[in-house]
Amino acid sequence: MLTYDLSRREGAPLYDYLYRCIRGDILAGRLSPGERLPSKRALARHLEVAVVTVENAYAQLCAEGYLTAREKSGYYVNLIETRTSPPPRPAPRPAPPEPGRTWLLDLKAAGGAPLPFSVWARLTRQALSEQGTDLLRPVPHNGVPELRRAISDYLYRFRGISAAPEQIVVGAGTEYLYNLIVQLLGRELTYALEDPGYLTAGRIYALNGAGCASVPVGPLGPDLEAVEGSGAQVLHLSPSHQFPTGAVTPIARRQALLSWAERGAGRYIIEDDYDSEFRFTGRPIPPMQSIDHLGRVLYVNTFSRTLSPSMRISYLVLPLSLVERYRERLGFYSCTVPALEQLTLARFLSGGYFEQHLNRARLYYRERRDQVIAALEDSPLAARARISGENAGLHFLLTLDTDRTDGELKALAEARDIRLSLLSDYCARPRPEWDRTLVIPYPALDPGRMPAALAALVEIL
Amino acid sequence: MLTYDLSRREGAPLYDYLYRCIRGDILAGRLSPGERLPSKRALARHLEVAVVTVENAYAQLCAEGYLTAREKSGYYVNLIETRTSPPPRPAPRPAPPEPGRTWLLDLKAAGGAPLPFSVWARLTRQALSEQGTDLLRPVPHNGVPELRRAISDYLYRFRGISAAPEQIVVGAGTEYLYNLIVQLLGRELTYALEDPGYLTAGRIYALNGAGCASVPVGPLGPDLEAVEGSGAQVLHLSPSHQFPTGAVTPIARRQALLSWAERGAGRYIIEDDYDSEFRFTGRPIPPMQSIDHLGRVLYVNTFSRTLSPSMRISYLVLPLSLVERYRERLGFYSCTVPALEQLTLARFLSGGYFEQHLNRARLYYRERRDQVIAALEDSPLAARARISGENAGLHFLLTLDTDRTDGELKALAEARDIRLSLLSDYCARPRPEWDRTLVIPYPALDPGRMPAALAALVEIL
Repeated sequence: MLTYDLSRREGAPLYDYLYRCIRGDILAGRLSPGERLPSKRALARHLEVAVVTVENAYAQLCAEGYLTAREKSGYYVNLIETRTSPPPRPAPRPAPPEPGRTWLLDLKAAGGAPLPFSVWARLTRQALSEQGTDLLRPVPHNGVPELRRAISDYLYRFRGISAAPEQIVVGAGTEYLYNLIVQLLGRELTYALEDPGYLTAGRIYALNGAGCASVPVGPLGPDLEAVEGSGAQVLHLSPSHQFPTGAVTPIARRQALLSWAERGAGRYIIEDDYDSEFRFTGRPIPPMQSIDHLGRVLYVNTFSRTLSPSMRISYLVLPLSLVERYRERLGFYSCTVPALEQLTLARFLSGGYFEQHLNRARLYYRERRDQVIAALEDSPLAARARISGENAGLHFLLTLDTDRTDGELKALAEARDIRLSLLSDYCARPRPEWDRTLVIPYPALDPGRMPAALAALVEIL
Repeated sequence: MLTYDLSRREGAPLYDYLYRCIRGDILAGRLSPGERLPSKRALARHLEVAVVTVENAYAQLCAEGYLTAREKSGYYVNLIETRTSPPPRPAPRPAPPEPGRTWLLDLKAAGGAPLPFSVWARLTRQALSEQGTDLLRPVPHNGVPELRRAISDYLYRFRGISAAPEQIVVGAGTEYLYNLIVQLLGRELTYALEDPGYLTAGRIYALNGAGCASVPVGPLGPDLEAVEGSGAQVLHLSPSHQFPTGAVTPIARRQALLSWAERGAGRYIIEDDYDSEFRFTGRPIPPMQSIDHLGRVLYVNTFSRTLSPSMRISYLVLPLSLVERYRERLGFYSCTVPALEQLTLARFLSGGYFEQHLNRARLYYRERRDQVIAALEDSPLAARARISGENAGLHFLLTLDTDRTDGELKALAEARDIRLSLLSDYCARPRPEWDRTLVIPYPALDPGRMPAALAALVEIL
């Protein structure tokens, strides 16, 4: 008869402990396939427990397939393939956090103008109280209507884009949206990316199995001949402030690129308008989407950059020609952004807070940029470096006058506690004119620590 | 000389209006390529505006590439490809919402036990006040540590899963996680899915360009020979409550499926444990992950189902063998769930509220299920229908005794304002044994309206 020490069950319910004991015996082979277990009554008497306890344990073993109950006959052990079972793995210990190195100057650091958190928190609380349990209802696949309407208004007023809320798809970050775009347009196509450029986009297209090509960019944007020669059907661009060169594609090149798209069936342009909110001279550059009359531009932008990286809210503006295809192919996907964040952002936009935040952020960035540039100009580095791309976006370039290679610069800087970000880091194919050029993410830098860092930097040239 | 009626600018800044006028003339060809514009002073005098106004307008036109400034010479119109520009599209009107049909009985409806919203709202407010601006910091790619620790604890205590927080990846919904899984394991592999089964998973694998196969499931789960014969490397299963048959894969079949995975290099099982929280007899069935000693099971579950569909929080438990590969290939992706939701959920889990909610929800579902089953048993349909799969999950099956085809049943029901959900809707390949079987999502049904609906239903058999 099965005998178990039920006093060792350490607070577990009796039936549960008994179930575990019998299961252990079956898995260990101590109870053989085909063996008949004692009747419920007999085992209950033997173990001095209630019949219902054994009944529950047997029922669970039947539910999981360890036993079979045969009517009027009893409970039999099933044949279970014995697998070599190494001892249960201990759960791995958390890896110790990488010791954070403290840099004198870190050009890979991220930073931005602080979001007015108290306003955001207040709007979140309002949305919680006013929407209440409505927040628990399913969200339309392309985002809550209030947010899509607010984005549509914002785009019309500030970016010259005329897009109906139906053209807008809200998603948890641009990375996620790039995945959807490949599923929309197709992975059998070739996606051309700017070189140098935003490497993550290329990585995502490649991870999706799409073909990738690279197109060199110059001061006037992507090279037209290279676009034609790339064999690509889809062109990923950041025309209003190219990352990382800062180039603004002029209107003639934009028109030519649109003509390229219109000349081939199924050609599209993905316009990444990131950082377009931050232009420090004149008005913002109108996006290509606003001069695209044949529906070849998919416009992408994000609030993660303007609000906070911990809030993954981005959006895609589909050309009218793709709205129906999107709904049919991808409309089954649930929207990835929670209702609460969407409704809070809708309030933030339509209440005018986003505009206020952008105005403040522009002042903050302009001041920070001027401080960093002033520190540069006051330093001995000024004579051996040239600034470019400083009129827009959240970084500028600094080309150094030196004979050192980029690899040497990096190693020498690191020995002086300086982490460099080099234009060549963003190149698919190295080109001499992109060498010896630093990418300066000025919002993340502390102007007070610049003089020491710049002095160290000039020593290594 | 350029002449514009500046009084028509309707509140726009002067320079901005002037910029738009000149831009319009260039695009319309009224100003020709190579043409020299009047000097800033001359135009300012002519239009009776300040020189700085013209200066700003010219600067913007230069920034966008409409003009080139030549030193000591003046401003010249650039050559811009004229494209056929149809009149600006009007933004499409929102499509009128589809008239919602009111059904007497809707088996496609969704519904669930209400989340204790006041508790959730309170924890959200707490997280907002206590975490403050920490909420704005970037989130680790696999989720905030507090949430991964809370999930790890929950899995250990309630699902018998021993997984370190490092094995857990938090993402915005299981659909998103399936996309990541294909990018992790590879789209050159074949993914086998249960038939009948959760069709969305197959749709996502196919959209990702992966090969798909289907494996028939019976009362004991997926057919082993079919698994072997499918040529698949990856098997997508819901072993603890198969959707939609409700079958529980017994331990012997689970062991055999694990052995299948262990026999081939690169074979994996994706265990979809959805609905496992809801089992109404005995204890929950332990997941395959808990008996997988060689690291072949990727475990997936979601909080969207247990909390609210508007909250997209799901998680993936990687086997130890894939943690490093995941980090290398996909660790660059930003986490798709906002910090606020993650920290609120961490509090909800570690404060014991989730457990309380599940206990209440189980009672709610059991009661609702019993009411729906009672209504069935009291109706004339009882004599012509058989219930199965009612011990677990949030639906059960009702097999009808009728000669009608599924298509006839659907059409006849619809004429009586009843929308059916049929087991054959979830089949890749039709099989007679799955015909004439309704999928009953009982949490979404109103027991009060059942008698009338069931009387109508029996008429059409």
